[in-house]
Amino acid sequence: MRISQQIFPRPVALITTISKEGKDNVATFSFLMPISFEPKYVAFSVSPNRHSFKNLKETKEFVMNILSKEMKKEAEICGSFSGKEKDKFVLAKLTKEKAEKVKPPLIKECPISFECKVVLMQEFGDHYLVVGKVEKEHIRNEEFEPLLHFSSETFATMKKLD
Amino acid sequence: MRISQQIFPRPVALITTISKEGKDNVATFSFLMPISFEPKYVAFSVSPNRHSFKNLKETKEFVMNILSKEMKKEAEICGSFSGKEKDKFVLAKLTKEKAEKVKPPLIKECPISFECKVVLMQEFGDHYLVVGKVEKEHIRNEEFEPLLHFSSETFATMKKLD
Repeated sequence: MRISQQIFPRPVALITTISKEGKDNVATFSFLMPISFEPKYVAFSVSPNRHSFKNLKETKEFVMNILSKEMKKEAEICGSFSGKEKDKFVLAKLTKEKAEKVKPPLIKECPISFECKVVLMQEFGDHYLVVGKVEKEHIRNEEFEPLLHFSSETFATMKKLD
Repeated sequence: MRISQQIFPRPVALITTISKEGKDNVATFSFLMPISFEPKYVAFSVSPNRHSFKNLKETKEFVMNILSKEMKKEAEICGSFSGKEKDKFVLAKLTKEKAEKVKPPLIKECPISFECKVVLMQEFGDHYLVVGKVEKEHIRNEEFEPLLHFSSETFATMKKLD
């Protein structure tokens, strides 16, 4: 049984990164979590096979853009191709905005964006754990309904319990 | 805006730990995620004020017991008291089972339990990030509906999107 079907569903983010030559990329992640309230820190897990991994190693910055339930299609597109071959910002019709503290772009369509600097990147099994310190946050919508990922093609949202 | 209301909802686990004198404890966590598929690794975040933190520092083992949506009451009880004062296994009517590879107990009522050894424990902001290597897993129910945590008193479950 895959661990993604055991610890589920998970909030989904589009994470933007940039190469040392300045070429940006966006990819979908759901192995992620908050770590600390004040100051804010976040963690996520990345496979070394992914294009984002190379960028993170090179420039040690990222933006974690949280997704609302309306953005399932964008999550699918940015999870389906490699940034080596395709410009996923164009494919998914995402609007880049300039970040203040880091080089990778913000994504305007997302309710929340966290500009982060990598403070830890360490291999565990088949993935690398990445910890980011949030240098700046952008809140565009406080009342969004979240997009959640269950398994390969199944996305979900939240249903409150009484 | 608190980070717990920005990255939400999160899967909920009851994490068991044990002191060096052999006294066990159980507490509710939702800052957690999978890291690696094979071998399996998990991460969670713990405040140094919590009783679980002291146990983790002392014995470097834990069991992550994933919760189904029927277990909201158990999550509330194990998130509301400190293990210093109360035996939450009794309060929440949880059944302990002996683990194979670690000393903290499994919780029989949970669909999945991961026996873990701590391989990283590092301070970031107001919390410590804990990484555990899964030494043994117990799957009691593959088809459970997950319990998710939104904010202080609000729990949720998953609603699949088309």
